[in-house]
Amino acid sequence: MLKTIRWTGESLELLDQTRLPQVKDYIVCTSYRDVRDAIRDMKVRGAPAIGVSAAYGMVLAAYECETQADSKDAFLECLAGRAAYLISARPTAVNLEWAVTKMLDKARETDDLAEIPEALAKLAEEIEREDLEVCRRIGKHGAELLGSSATVLTHCNAGSLATAGYGTALGVVRAAVEAGKKIQVYADETRPFLQGARLTAFELMEDDIPVTLITDNMAGYVMSLGIIDCVIVGADRIAANGDVANKIGTYSLAVLAREHNIPFYVAAPISTFDFDIKSGSEIRIEERDGKEVTEILGQRIAPEGVRVFNPAFDVTPHQYVTAIITERGIIHSPCSESIKKLLEADEEYVPEGELR
Amino acid sequence: MLKTIRWTGESLELLDQTRLPQVKDYIVCTSYRDVRDAIRDMKVRGAPAIGVSAAYGMVLAAYECETQADSKDAFLECLAGRAAYLISARPTAVNLEWAVTKMLDKARETDDLAEIPEALAKLAEEIEREDLEVCRRIGKHGAELLGSSATVLTHCNAGSLATAGYGTALGVVRAAVEAGKKIQVYADETRPFLQGARLTAFELMEDDIPVTLITDNMAGYVMSLGIIDCVIVGADRIAANGDVANKIGTYSLAVLAREHNIPFYVAAPISTFDFDIKSGSEIRIEERDGKEVTEILGQRIAPEGVRVFNPAFDVTPHQYVTAIITERGIIHSPCSESIKKLLEADEEYVPEGELR
Repeated sequence: MLKTIRWTGESLELLDQTRLPQVKDYIVCTSYRDVRDAIRDMKVRGAPAIGVSAAYGMVLAAYECETQADSKDAFLECLAGRAAYLISARPTAVNLEWAVTKMLDKARETDDLAEIPEALAKLAEEIEREDLEVCRRIGKHGAELLGSSATVLTHCNAGSLATAGYGTALGVVRAAVEAGKKIQVYADETRPFLQGARLTAFELMEDDIPVTLITDNMAGYVMSLGIIDCVIVGADRIAANGDVANKIGTYSLAVLAREHNIPFYVAAPISTFDFDIKSGSEIRIEERDGKEVTEILGQRIAPEGVRVFNPAFDVTPHQYVTAIITERGIIHSPCSESIKKLLEADEEYVPEGELR
Repeated sequence: MLKTIRWTGESLELLDQTRLPQVKDYIVCTSYRDVRDAIRDMKVRGAPAIGVSAAYGMVLAAYECETQADSKDAFLECLAGRAAYLISARPTAVNLEWAVTKMLDKARETDDLAEIPEALAKLAEEIEREDLEVCRRIGKHGAELLGSSATVLTHCNAGSLATAGYGTALGVVRAAVEAGKKIQVYADETRPFLQGARLTAFELMEDDIPVTLITDNMAGYVMSLGIIDCVIVGADRIAANGDVANKIGTYSLAVLAREHNIPFYVAAPISTFDFDIKSGSEIRIEERDGKEVTEILGQRIAPEGVRVFNPAFDVTPHQYVTAIITERGIIHSPCSESIKKLLEADEEYVPEGELR
């Protein structure tokens, strides 16, 4: 599988996800501005992958601040400005803010100014390694929810391309396949950006996992045929009560899944939770350029001048979520209490026995 | 507004709906084979428009049979073969079979062989005129369901382009606007064929009716925002119990509408009912070429060799349908009994008083 994110020590190379699957090319980011643009333009996307990329963006920012600042205060001021700029790239995914803040905190607590860039580079690599490890743990937990033979419907791309590798929703699929289960996937194409058609289909085919592509509006019909065993999606931000912001169309899928008594699972690292917000109604939903809807690969598909509404995400109330699969275990019937219960448990605690 | 179907007396000119809105061009059909290909390739689409086109296709077939047959039996045999070929173009829309059968019956009951072609031409023109008149009546009935200011969500194109003119679902919108109501429309783009983006947005903009384009997977989110007052769609075939076959994605919309307590209306002429089938489970759902999903305007959007499922329609059980709007009146809570009741009423009977 192609690597989503490559760090050379001096630059960040990102697999250009706007051009997959036709063109497999990396863009080279030599400054935090390049990283910010790559995130904004969705060259790299997927909440965890954005977080890891932004962490490296902070390293590049630190390299610049080092040449400009002559005191730690000046350095931190320089870095904080660049951090805010990176965070402004996309508003909905919490991992972006989470990773950048973590990097900024590390800079603050590193006493020797000269050591900050290296400390940040180390931390970014740690965040990347941890993301991969977290995905594998999510996969392991989630795989237990699948029978020995299962058909999974997924939306957007919560795969290795959306993370440092392995994936969250697709991590569950991969872990189930590795455990010897017979899994096939239905992938929503996921308009307007077509992450399902371009990325999910691509990475599952690379791994020889059977995948069938459908348009988003076929999901209800496919469910009505009785061939879907569960839905698994990723998440961009989860409120304290378990409400889930994820790629536009997720909410429709959740409603349809409940109507058909199909379990609806969200696979996401703990870092996706935002305990500063009580419910999904507080999550800011990014609106993107209408051109993403009216043009496909540069070709116009709608009349000139048509009004467009293009929200990039929606919010699925926790009542529709059967379970949230995290690296620390599975939160069944997610709500403020069940989420708290899992998170208050010991970091090392493996919760299968007690919580399931 | 551009005319969908133009009959010259010798040929059928069809507005090429695969090229709208960018190119406004007519294809010329000089034989029933041309008409069949145009229907199969969706140059003309929309159940009523397909019916009208096929009727003219039968006239072109009659012109050919006239030169080949020396008896009425031979003529009818020639015509019946061509009728079957026309019907085979697309399996789901009932209007195709309905119109072709009506034409064949007219040929059978016309005594003088020499008079058949002219009789058929007259009948085709009558079917076309009647379709336009039926749409206007559907519009008039349906408009009463809308408040003085309303936002309507629609799917696919059930507009003037899908009929001889005026439209069914969009006929309701037009009639409401003509009645002085303030109506705006949200149009699902309707993948894979993009009838919403290419056709519905186009014809509403031509008529200066406010329209906002969304991708299909945004419908649930838009409903959750509380800005949609009702959903109105067309139909390709309605079973005796009120189950509705319509463009893929209709069923998902119906489920979402019910979840949000939004009325879900189907606007369709009586000719859309198929009393030979008891329920939607008997309706044959056309599967089309996967390329419609993996290619957009000739450009590939998915990996080569990916498996695709491409059903062109789905079935919405009548329980999800708030009302069916027909030219004879509105069938509330459609089911075998309520449908029978409306249809057994006198043709001239205007059913508002009793049935609503």
